[in-house]
Amino acid sequence: MIAGIELGGTKTVVAIGTPEGKVVEEFRFPTTHPEETLAVAAEWLRARGTPGDICIAAFGPVGVVKGRENYGKILATPKAGWSDFSLTGALAEVFPEARYSIDTDVNAAALAEARIGAAAGLDDVAYITIGTGIGAGILSGGHLIHGSLHPETGHLKVPRHPEDTFKGVCPFHADCLEGLASGPAIAARWGKPADELPVGHPAWDMQAWYLAHGILSLLAIVSPEKVIVGGGVSQVAGLHEKINRLLVEIGAGYFPVLLTDGDYVVPPALGQEAGICGAFLLTGS
Amino acid sequence: MIAGIELGGTKTVVAIGTPEGKVVEEFRFPTTHPEETLAVAAEWLRARGTPGDICIAAFGPVGVVKGRENYGKILATPKAGWSDFSLTGALAEVFPEARYSIDTDVNAAALAEARIGAAAGLDDVAYITIGTGIGAGILSGGHLIHGSLHPETGHLKVPRHPEDTFKGVCPFHADCLEGLASGPAIAARWGKPADELPVGHPAWDMQAWYLAHGILSLLAIVSPEKVIVGGGVSQVAGLHEKINRLLVEIGAGYFPVLLTDGDYVVPPALGQEAGICGAFLLTGS
Repeated sequence: MIAGIELGGTKTVVAIGTPEGKVVEEFRFPTTHPEETLAVAAEWLRARGTPGDICIAAFGPVGVVKGRENYGKILATPKAGWSDFSLTGALAEVFPEARYSIDTDVNAAALAEARIGAAAGLDDVAYITIGTGIGAGILSGGHLIHGSLHPETGHLKVPRHPEDTFKGVCPFHADCLEGLASGPAIAARWGKPADELPVGHPAWDMQAWYLAHGILSLLAIVSPEKVIVGGGVSQVAGLHEKINRLLVEIGAGYFPVLLTDGDYVVPPALGQEAGICGAFLLTGS
Repeated sequence: MIAGIELGGTKTVVAIGTPEGKVVEEFRFPTTHPEETLAVAAEWLRARGTPGDICIAAFGPVGVVKGRENYGKILATPKAGWSDFSLTGALAEVFPEARYSIDTDVNAAALAEARIGAAAGLDDVAYITIGTGIGAGILSGGHLIHGSLHPETGHLKVPRHPEDTFKGVCPFHADCLEGLASGPAIAARWGKPADELPVGHPAWDMQAWYLAHGILSLLAIVSPEKVIVGGGVSQVAGLHEKINRLLVEIGAGYFPVLLTDGDYVVPPALGQEAGICGAFLLTGS
């Protein structure tokens, strides 16, 4: 039996599935305190058997490189009670024999979209999610990128849109990508939340401009074959097309991968299942 | 016998060495037309034996992913005669039995600095070179990053220095990192070449500012444990210290790897030997 857990900031998914990324049965519940959240997941699993593998896709920052002291732990976070909490440690008290795999929720989603989703068959894929924050998971040459921690693409500095005077909402960097293009940034700049801004609102041209510049940075550094843009703030009609048009314009003929059919940036194919599907694809990693 | 070839824009190095990156004997000569350049290298090698492995570190764009149609070829380049020239093809006419490995000169240099140089022992390292152009090689989790092509970090868009009105020299993007911080950009902005600008000239504060912003993008996307900055335009005294100070300032406490001893960005340890040493480290890849 293979277990998957997707630990999100507000909801957690626990499931049974296959190493090919297929969910057989799942249960969604609110993320609360760490001990309680992991106990709910463990209890749901124990009622179904004893998993040989437990694969975790977690919000960050989280230690995901085997052999490092912080492996399996949530690192310094403003989320009350979670800093330094060991996810694998808590689960190992219930399932001491299981093999554990862990990565970020966005890396898991990138892996799922690259194996069975919108970028199926590609080994160089970036997945960006735009919501309360901005995050990215990156598969490069078939390997998920971690580095000294893991990508923090939301905190990328991008040029400013020439007509944008909004100072940005990131408490660390003010006008990084997340500070200028996350859901809270859009709401603060335009005075209403993204889902109340109609398709033709100038907010979406500016949003496409910032996302295109962030994606150009990904292209210059890791050269993905395809970029998936998902998350709550990406669902307005026409946003992906706008980003593709701007990328061709600002890439200025330099990046061969952009000179295709305008489908470099695409929406996710797996929707809200990408994280949990990706957790199963981490089996044995 | 293991052969290494570093093919640069103006000079080529051919050498015999070890898979640990040690050069036993080398010969440097000017890069001319492709057939002639490769013939000089092959002749020098043939006088010394028949290499079982030939490892190439080449200027880009170049096809470096095994199995792709463009593997071993120089791709579209303004360098006369080189577009679509197969490096491995030309050498295989002389040494048909050899095993070939190929990567970019900057990836080879990154690998050398990570194995036997300024970042020895680390698996997540970026190497940036600043000269006529700007390029980067990136080792991530022990794997060199290629993606759909290979990193083109020089063409990263960065915010503009608030006091900089220079429009930039990149023929594609004007004010990308290379357009604002390469040797030709510095010469055009300040009216004299970088090596004539004294240590206290304001050019160097602006240069550090642009490099710090480019490195912050690398940090947000691939999270290197250490960044090596080399190349002709990086050799002015104090530049690396300036970049480190700025990175701590603009990182604003968010990136744990910056909260160390101010030695996140360092000069190369292998100098102009990094590329050829790195070629040998590609043996069997």
